[in-house]
Amino acid sequence: MSEFFKEIPKIQYEGPGSKNPLAFKYYNPEEMVGGKKMKDHLRFSVAYWHSFCGAGADPFGVGTMIRPWDDIADPMEKARARVRGAFELFDKLGIEYFCFHDRDIAPEADTLTETNKRLDEIVQLMKEHMKATGVQLLWGTACLFTHPRYVHGASTSCNADVFAFSAAQVKKAMELTHELNGLGYTFWGGREGYDTLINTDMKLELENMARFLHMATDYKKEIGFKGQFYIEPKPKEPTKHQYDFDAATIIGFLRANGLDKDFKLNIEANHATLAGHTPEHELRMARINGLLGSVDANEGDLLLGWDTDHLPTDVYNTTLIMYEILQAGGFATGGLNFDAKLRRPSFEPVDLFHGHIAGMDAFAVGLKAAHKLLQDGPIENFIAERYSSYKSGVGADIVNNKVGFKELEQYALDHGPIQNGSGREEMLKSIITQYILESR
Amino acid sequence: MSEFFKEIPKIQYEGPGSKNPLAFKYYNPEEMVGGKKMKDHLRFSVAYWHSFCGAGADPFGVGTMIRPWDDIADPMEKARARVRGAFELFDKLGIEYFCFHDRDIAPEADTLTETNKRLDEIVQLMKEHMKATGVQLLWGTACLFTHPRYVHGASTSCNADVFAFSAAQVKKAMELTHELNGLGYTFWGGREGYDTLINTDMKLELENMARFLHMATDYKKEIGFKGQFYIEPKPKEPTKHQYDFDAATIIGFLRANGLDKDFKLNIEANHATLAGHTPEHELRMARINGLLGSVDANEGDLLLGWDTDHLPTDVYNTTLIMYEILQAGGFATGGLNFDAKLRRPSFEPVDLFHGHIAGMDAFAVGLKAAHKLLQDGPIENFIAERYSSYKSGVGADIVNNKVGFKELEQYALDHGPIQNGSGREEMLKSIITQYILESR
Amino acid sequence: MSEFFKEIPKIQYEGPGSKNPLAFKYYNPEEMVGGKKMKDHLRFSVAYWHSFCGAGADPFGVGTMIRPWDDIADPMEKARARVRGAFELFDKLGIEYFCFHDRDIAPEADTLTETNKRLDEIVQLMKEHMKATGVQLLWGTACLFTHPRYVHGASTSCNADVFAFSAAQVKKAMELTHELNGLGYTFWGGREGYDTLINTDMKLELENMARFLHMATDYKKEIGFKGQFYIEPKPKEPTKHQYDFDAATIIGFLRANGLDKDFKLNIEANHATLAGHTPEHELRMARINGLLGSVDANEGDLLLGWDTDHLPTDVYNTTLIMYEILQAGGFATGGLNFDAKLRRPSFEPVDLFHGHIAGMDAFAVGLKAAHKLLQDGPIENFIAERYSSYKSGVGADIVNNKVGFKELEQYALDHGPIQNGSGREEMLKSIITQYILESR
Amino acid sequence: MSEFFKEIPKIQYEGPGSKNPLAFKYYNPEEMVGGKKMKDHLRFSVAYWHSFCGAGADPFGVGTMIRPWDDIADPMEKARARVRGAFELFDKLGIEYFCFHDRDIAPEADTLTETNKRLDEIVQLMKEHMKATGVQLLWGTACLFTHPRYVHGASTSCNADVFAFSAAQVKKAMELTHELNGLGYTFWGGREGYDTLINTDMKLELENMARFLHMATDYKKEIGFKGQFYIEPKPKEPTKHQYDFDAATIIGFLRANGLDKDFKLNIEANHATLAGHTPEHELRMARINGLLGSVDANEGDLLLGWDTDHLPTDVYNTTLIMYEILQAGGFATGGLNFDAKLRRPSFEPVDLFHGHIAGMDAFAVGLKAAHKLLQDGPIENFIAERYSSYKSGVGADIVNNKVGFKELEQYALDHGPIQNGSGREEMLKSIITQYILESR
Repeated sequence: MSEFFKEIPKIQYEGPGSKNPLAFKYYNPEEMVGGKKMKDHLRFSVAYWHSFCGAGADPFGVGTMIRPWDDIADPMEKARARVRGAFELFDKLGIEYFCFHDRDIAPEADTLTETNKRLDEIVQLMKEHMKATGVQLLWGTACLFTHPRYVHGASTSCNADVFAFSAAQVKKAMELTHELNGLGYTFWGGREGYDTLINTDMKLELENMARFLHMATDYKKEIGFKGQFYIEPKPKEPTKHQYDFDAATIIGFLRANGLDKDFKLNIEANHATLAGHTPEHELRMARINGLLGSVDANEGDLLLGWDTDHLPTDVYNTTLIMYEILQAGGFATGGLNFDAKLRRPSFEPVDLFHGHIAGMDAFAVGLKAAHKLLQDGPIENFIAERYSSYKSGVGADIVNNKVGFKELEQYALDHGPIQNGSGREEMLKSIITQYILESR
Repeated sequence: MSEFFKEIPKIQYEGPGSKNPLAFKYYNPEEMVGGKKMKDHLRFSVAYWHSFCGAGADPFGVGTMIRPWDDIADPMEKARARVRGAFELFDKLGIEYFCFHDRDIAPEADTLTETNKRLDEIVQLMKEHMKATGVQLLWGTACLFTHPRYVHGASTSCNADVFAFSAAQVKKAMELTHELNGLGYTFWGGREGYDTLINTDMKLELENMARFLHMATDYKKEIGFKGQFYIEPKPKEPTKHQYDFDAATIIGFLRANGLDKDFKLNIEANHATLAGHTPEHELRMARINGLLGSVDANEGDLLLGWDTDHLPTDVYNTTLIMYEILQAGGFATGGLNFDAKLRRPSFEPVDLFHGHIAGMDAFAVGLKAAHKLLQDGPIENFIAERYSSYKSGVGADIVNNKVGFKELEQYALDHGPIQNGSGREEMLKSIITQYILESR
Repeated sequence: MSEFFKEIPKIQYEGPGSKNPLAFKYYNPEEMVGGKKMKDHLRFSVAYWHSFCGAGADPFGVGTMIRPWDDIADPMEKARARVRGAFELFDKLGIEYFCFHDRDIAPEADTLTETNKRLDEIVQLMKEHMKATGVQLLWGTACLFTHPRYVHGASTSCNADVFAFSAAQVKKAMELTHELNGLGYTFWGGREGYDTLINTDMKLELENMARFLHMATDYKKEIGFKGQFYIEPKPKEPTKHQYDFDAATIIGFLRANGLDKDFKLNIEANHATLAGHTPEHELRMARINGLLGSVDANEGDLLLGWDTDHLPTDVYNTTLIMYEILQAGGFATGGLNFDAKLRRPSFEPVDLFHGHIAGMDAFAVGLKAAHKLLQDGPIENFIAERYSSYKSGVGADIVNNKVGFKELEQYALDHGPIQNGSGREEMLKSIITQYILESR
Repeated sequence: MSEFFKEIPKIQYEGPGSKNPLAFKYYNPEEMVGGKKMKDHLRFSVAYWHSFCGAGADPFGVGTMIRPWDDIADPMEKARARVRGAFELFDKLGIEYFCFHDRDIAPEADTLTETNKRLDEIVQLMKEHMKATGVQLLWGTACLFTHPRYVHGASTSCNADVFAFSAAQVKKAMELTHELNGLGYTFWGGREGYDTLINTDMKLELENMARFLHMATDYKKEIGFKGQFYIEPKPKEPTKHQYDFDAATIIGFLRANGLDKDFKLNIEANHATLAGHTPEHELRMARINGLLGSVDANEGDLLLGWDTDHLPTDVYNTTLIMYEILQAGGFATGGLNFDAKLRRPSFEPVDLFHGHIAGMDAFAVGLKAAHKLLQDGPIENFIAERYSSYKSGVGADIVNNKVGFKELEQYALDHGPIQNGSGREEMLKSIITQYILESR
């Protein structure tokens, strides 16, 4: 079968000195970092929607992307071509995972029955490619936001028929994910929120959202799907307010509805910043609650107020993400899914490779810096010392719940002025830069 | 005793046609709205810190405010003068509630013992004024953020001695609130958060925050204080991240720590917008979770990224706040506390009156518009109709948990294309404007 | 010819008490305000792109809008239907102006020659409708941002062929505007900016932008087009940075390039807030520089970071806009063009009417409040008094350039402590609310 | 004379492998980079206000900083101690420049005459230290924003007496700067703007601002001061809107008022981001207009909406700043002034050193990366190629103003579909990361 990306060779590691744009400078998949291969730490995944379906349209312009399958008119033939192109790209980049929405892989037909048939066909094709290559499905999902029927939401629609259709669509997407031995299944509620509170029954919508997730959990058991369920925070866009606002909001929601045993979080860097948080904050929040699952690896432009989904190139960003991942013991079922798109002016096929190489190199640097930081411990040792007052004396009594306000008041009355130590933020930041620069 | 604000008369209601800046145009305290006096709906409160202690300093300039007690050198004499001035202002504005931090009413002394004596003295003075006037304490609180000892937080400090001191301070503040028959006690964690994650043990800090609130709850029972505990969200400022980020975050935190029976939320408009939410969103979130307690009534400048704490003058803001309050059945223990400060250039004593008159008039308009909107029902009727599909058929089955993914898939397969109706946002917004303009 | 909006009657003024959603409550076109008809103050215009072409797509979903011409397959037949629908809407709303881009009215064909023929045909059709109804073209413009050829900008493209094509397109759009006796022609540089500075020759791009505008000015003279040229600020979106960032930036650019005699500004509310300004700031900046031309009347959501283009419904916004317009002596060639779109969930044809009624009513209220404020003078009198120190003494000397640093130092040394007066922001804001509520 | 910072040695360059927090890892002052010493490229300067006067107060807390002169009660004795401490810090860090406001170095007295005497005394003391050490004054300035008299602005105050006092203050500050052979003098209009437009005569204020700068220019000539005048953009904070919003706004203002020959710009990174721009955008804008003067070297937190003035530690930020500086031919009179403050929790004296070491190391990395990028040319070569169509054919005709709309239309009609090339943003960003990592 002929190649789609003929001019692109298999991307090789050439090291930091290479001037070859189609080579890795830092990502060396088989290199051992702390007893594990780089590729097994990072578990890179390609996002089917951006890389194979994204056209480069924006609110003021139509698509610009040039893709090898552009001239194929028949939608199913195009869908098949995309599968072939995808696996060629996975192979050339050495990427072992991917993620997709149902509607990415097969276009919706006139009826649900027909749509599902189309899905079945493409899934069989994918299965063959996966078997042949060893590439795995990191997670599957259903697109419950593009079609006009979802204009008021999916499980939170004011229209019960839409809730029902959403259920049908997720049911099928879960079955397909199961069929492909997907390691996970993700819920991103792109329109689960509101555009204006003045026409919204927020209470019913939140209850229905919980109902929907319980139905999914029940069905998961019924079909014996063992993959991990993820839920992905985003505060806004496309809607004014999305119920899965951020990690803390979702964690509260899952617990309030008895769903916290069944879900983990899929954290996206750009969604974090849209919510006013750093990506590492969201990861930390998920981690300390035992709910860190997977990562949508990208980068936002903090001077822009929308989801720009840049390919990640900032090594501070990748270092701080990997720092949290390594502290969580590494990925279990999750990975680094490049939920990232090329800039609209980066429309040539080769840019797909430039973009992913940039992201993979940036995460390789981040992994090594984070690993070395944890190995040497300049940050963790500082923190341990900083909170050491809780290890003994009144601090230990507090932590062990042995004292109350009266005992503490007495302690305060008995002790002189309080001595605090510096937080040393500037010194610590300087250390992080040094580790980034020196840990390669 | 001589007046401090001699040139200011008791502010009277003169009606919408009045050109007298020192008169109410819309706030008519005794006027009945839906069977209740306007003043009993609104329960206005003055914030002691802004109105009697705030000097008008900002990060680039010292204080500008001219206050009658400026020339008093002795700190306790000044503290007594402020009490007198406060009650004069309450009387002239016809405001029946106030709120304070411990450190607002009496300055910290060299030792905790001495500091607490100072507090006792001022509280006795306040008690006399309250008895004489009938003015009540809406809520008290402790200032755990101004003093350098709180540089790393209070209950979330890395220093156990600071935790202990915070406990002592809150214990005393609760006792004083109890002594004054305060209707509530508020927790705002101004430095309960972090400046940088790289020196922070977030897990321990969150656990300690919960421990602290449990201790407070225990002590409340011990002393028999019956007032309502409130917790107040704010996402950031002064710290980079505050743990009480927004209503959803706090609700999750309270539930996770078994504290949700003991606390309600105190929602501030400007804190809402700093978190990326409308004030009505935060109120709605609190309301549908049964946790709506009280309101810090102010207004932010959405083009500025810090807490501007404007006196509220926008009648859309006040209408949407009162709409949520009325839907919650009105205030129980809470009220509208003007946690708002005059602009630095509004430094004359009379501006204190202009500012509060502006706020009270704006809320009077908002109350009447919200009341009429609920009475006539254009919004609620639209919502009821919009979600009516959940009242019967498959919608009722969903709400009653009678169906799962399989039944819903079958339903979707059996039914044709979905019909949605318009959300009518523009029409509904136009109706709200009309009600604001016509409900006075 | 059959109606497109059969169910919609001609919209009538029914007054503030009306509960008819398809009636004006405040906009009474023939009512005199300060010696001029309301409609002649406001000069409402419909934006062809949003109202007749906008489909309701967003970055996460396809179009939702239901329009009477949806089923017409032939693009030119659809274009003709849109013209008919547009004039029906103008008539039913009583709107006397409209604005369009070349590509709104006729779809691009395979060649420029063919494209221009299509434009000629539709323009002739429009001309007939305009003659029959008296509706006028407020301004025309060219769409230099949707087509992939503009991916790197138009006059600021790195590709000279794109500069040439842009010139051809603007030339034609100017000719068509002239043919329709357009009152103005607008330049909005949607992609005149950059996505990243690291691949950009900003100096050349800015010079080329100026060259382009000079060519337009030359060609305007050549064809004898007497309409007003406008340039419209927007800081970002779709690009990261747009050269026409805000009013101050454009004014500086026009002056630096000798173009300030040939252009005025077209100010859009939502673009103002994206740049961190209030709409009234942008209008004031244009006004005091003698460059206030026209207004794109809409409203942003300040909690969202993109151009939401809401129909304007906030009467504070409309009052402050009309305050600036009236102070500028009213519109000369300009008007209030509703560059605003229905929310994606407001997809029914009737919402087009609800949205425009909402906007027209809001501006009617704003006009009357602004007129009364200027008539009575509470704001302007306060300002005159506030700056009165520049009318005599040292202030007059300063303004008349009679003194320098040495004289002013001597004055400062000779005079005692400075007395300032309050800025009275809260009182003034309260007055504005009162005027809005009472001026109808 | 005894040392203030006894525990701090002279900071030495120890190289990238050093774990000594009180050593430079990257800043090696005498190292040659492109034929010039590192220190002569970077021209580091300490900001007197932050480092010697800043107490660490924020809007919710008092100062925390521990400084060796804290216990000195007499204000002039403290002022003298600060001078001594400053020069000790300059020496230990090897910093050769500093900047100050008049009020930083000597506290205001009861009268202007007395205040000026205090200034004279401290300036003489500084002069001695400067002579002894060779440290130079990068620029001086006057503080026209802290004192209550400036509540409504300085040269833009509504009060002519304030204009006069401002003139007196700037006159003196210029004289002192001249006396110290300052290389420049900076105007930052901290309150030159407005808090609300509704009480503001913006036209008069802008005219007065221009008058003031003309007076300063006249006086500069009169006293023969040859230093460079700078004006520094900031969009907001403390006021809602500052007239010196950003580089483009200032450039327009200077030109409109005939001041562009007399001023250059002093660009601050954090002010850039508050205005919605990257620092490199502001530098580029200044550079291509020939107005790039000096840099206030710091870093903002883009998730916070106020001026955080972090010490710069992000090497992307420093690389892109140095890239613009090198392209401008390096600093003439300007330098990198650390207008940056320690975090409030970094309150120990040693943090002053940690912070500046962090900043100096970050800029050393940035310098070397930028130098290598310009030497090798991967960015500039790409740009040259990208815009090459303007070097010949129709592009050259455009640039040489040989063609107009008619010729360009003919060209467009004659030529087929346009071919664009990719902007390659992802590849270029990846190259920048590689240069940062590899250029040390």
